[in-house]
Amino acid sequence: MEENNIDAAILIYSRDVLYYAGTARPCNLLITKDDSVLFVRRAYEFVEKETRIKNLVKGESFKLIKEKLDENGIKKGVMGLELDIIPAKFYLSIKKIFPNFEFVDISPFILEQRLIKDDKEIEYAKKSAEITDKGQSRAREVIREGMTEIELAAEVEAGMRRNKHEGIIFNRRFDANLHYGLISSGKNLDKMTGYANVVTGVGLSKSFPQSASERVIKKGDLIVIDIGGVYRGYHSDNGRTYVVGKIEKKQAEVFDELKVIQQEILDNIHRGLKSSEIYEIALKKANECKYGNFFMGYGENKGNFVGHGVGLEIGEPPYISPYDKTVLRENMTLAIELNTIIPEWGAVKLEDTILIKKDGYEFLTSTEREIFSV
Amino acid sequence: MEENNIDAAILIYSRDVLYYAGTARPCNLLITKDDSVLFVRRAYEFVEKETRIKNLVKGESFKLIKEKLDENGIKKGVMGLELDIIPAKFYLSIKKIFPNFEFVDISPFILEQRLIKDDKEIEYAKKSAEITDKGQSRAREVIREGMTEIELAAEVEAGMRRNKHEGIIFNRRFDANLHYGLISSGKNLDKMTGYANVVTGVGLSKSFPQSASERVIKKGDLIVIDIGGVYRGYHSDNGRTYVVGKIEKKQAEVFDELKVIQQEILDNIHRGLKSSEIYEIALKKANECKYGNFFMGYGENKGNFVGHGVGLEIGEPPYISPYDKTVLRENMTLAIELNTIIPEWGAVKLEDTILIKKDGYEFLTSTEREIFSV
Repeated sequence: MEENNIDAAILIYSRDVLYYAGTARPCNLLITKDDSVLFVRRAYEFVEKETRIKNLVKGESFKLIKEKLDENGIKKGVMGLELDIIPAKFYLSIKKIFPNFEFVDISPFILEQRLIKDDKEIEYAKKSAEITDKGQSRAREVIREGMTEIELAAEVEAGMRRNKHEGIIFNRRFDANLHYGLISSGKNLDKMTGYANVVTGVGLSKSFPQSASERVIKKGDLIVIDIGGVYRGYHSDNGRTYVVGKIEKKQAEVFDELKVIQQEILDNIHRGLKSSEIYEIALKKANECKYGNFFMGYGENKGNFVGHGVGLEIGEPPYISPYDKTVLRENMTLAIELNTIIPEWGAVKLEDTILIKKDGYEFLTSTEREIFSV
Repeated sequence: MEENNIDAAILIYSRDVLYYAGTARPCNLLITKDDSVLFVRRAYEFVEKETRIKNLVKGESFKLIKEKLDENGIKKGVMGLELDIIPAKFYLSIKKIFPNFEFVDISPFILEQRLIKDDKEIEYAKKSAEITDKGQSRAREVIREGMTEIELAAEVEAGMRRNKHEGIIFNRRFDANLHYGLISSGKNLDKMTGYANVVTGVGLSKSFPQSASERVIKKGDLIVIDIGGVYRGYHSDNGRTYVVGKIEKKQAEVFDELKVIQQEILDNIHRGLKSSEIYEIALKKANECKYGNFFMGYGENKGNFVGHGVGLEIGEPPYISPYDKTVLRENMTLAIELNTIIPEWGAVKLEDTILIKKDGYEFLTSTEREIFSV
C-alpha cells in the first residue's frame, strides 16, 4: 500500500476478506498502514474464532468505518476498493461517505499477492485436484450409451460433492457464473456457445446455455468433461475426453496432438518464464500439428489463451495468453487448458492443474492423461 | 422510462437481458424510448435465433453504444444502469464515455416489471417447483443413520440435477452465492452462521460456511433440507424437515406450530394485500405459539421476513417483511419461508412456493406439508 500511496483500503468481497482475515462471513476489512480492523455484520461469535485479525468491530456500515478512520487521523487521501467486483451502488455510497478521498482499484494488488500459494494453500489445491480426479473416475464408472448428458452431469457432480466439493465455483468476472461440471458430447462439442472460448456444452435452455443438455449419448460419441474442484475455498481444473466404445483413428490422432502440445508446455515450463512465453510455445507446437488450425477453437471464437491461474477463484492471474507478461514463480498453481474444436466434427480437451516448483512443475491432477474408451 | 424521465438504459446483467431480449449470452441491451438494440459480444449466430430484438449489432463495447445513441440524437440526459449489480469499474468506464449523462439505478423498475409472471414463466416456475419435489423425495429415499450431511447433499442435488435442474442459483445480492441445496442436521441446525437468518447449515469449511458438512447423521436427528429449483431460468424454493426414526413429541409440536402459521398465511393471502401485512399476520400467529419466541430464529440474528418473491433470481421482490409495502397481484410467485430455530435444541423448516391467483393462491411445490419420519 505504501508503494502505491494508498492510505486506506476497504475490502468487501468474501474471497479477499477470507484471504487476509481468514473468514468469509459477512465482514468488511479496513486496512491502513498501521492497522487492520474487521467490521462484522453477522455471526460475530463465528468470526471471532476464525479470524486472525485482532481488532474486531460489530457492525459493518461504511459510517462506522469512517469513524474509525477519523479516530486514526486519516481524513483524506487515496482509498483502495475492489472496483472490479463491488457493485456501482456500493461505490457510490462509499464515495458519499468519504468525500475527501480519491478511489483506486485495489484488486490488481490483491490478485498479485494471491499469486504465490503457501503450504496450506497448496495442500488445499492438491485436495481440490483430487476431488476432480474422483469426478473423472465417476464418469468412467457411469458413462453408457443411451444416458443423457444431464444424467451424466448429475453423477459426476455428485461424485465430487460426496468427496467434499464445496458445491459452488467462485469466478471474479462479472456475471460469469460457472457450473462445476461442464459436460458436452457428440454434436454439441463444436458449438461455441458464448460463455468462454472452450468446449462449454449447450446447456438445458437459453437461460443458461452451458454444460450438460438433454442430448442422448450414442455409441462412438466423443464426450468432454471439464470439471472444477473446490476444497476449503481452493479451486482446481481438470478436463478429459472420453469415447463411447472404440476410439476411432481421427479421435486418437486429434487427442494425441493435444497431448504433444501439453508435453511441450510441460517440458519448457519453469519459474522465470513469462506467461506469454508459455502461450507462444504452445502455439508454435500447435502450428506444426495437422489439426493446429482448430487448436483452441475456430473462426471468430478462437481462444487466445492456454490456461489460467487457479486459487480462491477458478480463473485468476496469471492468464496464459499473449498479453500477460507475468513471470512464473515457485508455488503458483496453474491450469493448463487445451482444447481442439473442429466444426462439424467435435472436440477434445486435456486440462490439468499444476504447481510451479523450484525446478519445473508438479501435477496436482492425477487422472491419466489419456483419451478414455468407456 | 418516460414516466421516470429516463432517456436511455443500458442493461448488462444476463438475467435482465434474458427477460427483455430472450437471450442470456454475452450481450448488452440498449433501450431508448423508440428503439431497442442488442449489442452482441459473442455467439452472434445463437443470439440471432433466440432473441426477439430485431436490431442487432456485433460487438458490445460501450463506445459502439455511444455511436448508436449519437446517431439517434440522444447526446445527453438521464441514463439508467443496473447500479445495484454492475461492478463499479463498469460504471466508471461508462461514465467516462457518456460525460453528458446523469445516471440512475434502473434495477428497481426492472424488478417491478418482473413481479408479474406470464403464462410461460408460470409454466417454468411449476416445473422448477417439481424439481424441488423430486429433490425432497430423493431425500426420503436415501436418508439413513450413519451417512454424512455431505453424502445426503450429493444425493439430493443429483436428484434435482437429473431432473433438469440448471445446476446453479442466481441471486442478485452481491457476493451472496448460494448452494442449490442447504442441508443441515442435528446440532448444526441452531447455528446462525451468517449468510442468511434461516437454517443455513455450517458447511465444509470456513471458506463457504453454509449447507452440508461432514457431520454424521444420527438416530433421532432433525434434518432440514431447503432446496432451490431452477428450470429454464426460473427459481423455486422448497424447505422440509425430517426426523431419523421416530418423531419425538417436541419435534412434532414445533413443526405443527409452523404449519399453523403457514395455514394462517395461506388462509389470508390474496391479491390486494400488502407484503408487510402478510408478515404481520404471520408474526401475530407466531406470538400465540408456545415456541413463537424462536420463530425465524433468535437473538440478534432473528430474521424479519417470512418469504420472498422468486423468479429469474432466487430472491427478488416482494420481500415479505415489515418494510415492503408491495401490493400482491395475480401471477406473482412467492416463497413462503418459515423457520423455527431453538438454541441448544435444533430447528424445523417449512417452505413452499406459491402462485397468487385471482382468487387466493395455488401451491407450486407439492411435497407433503409434513414432518417426515425417515
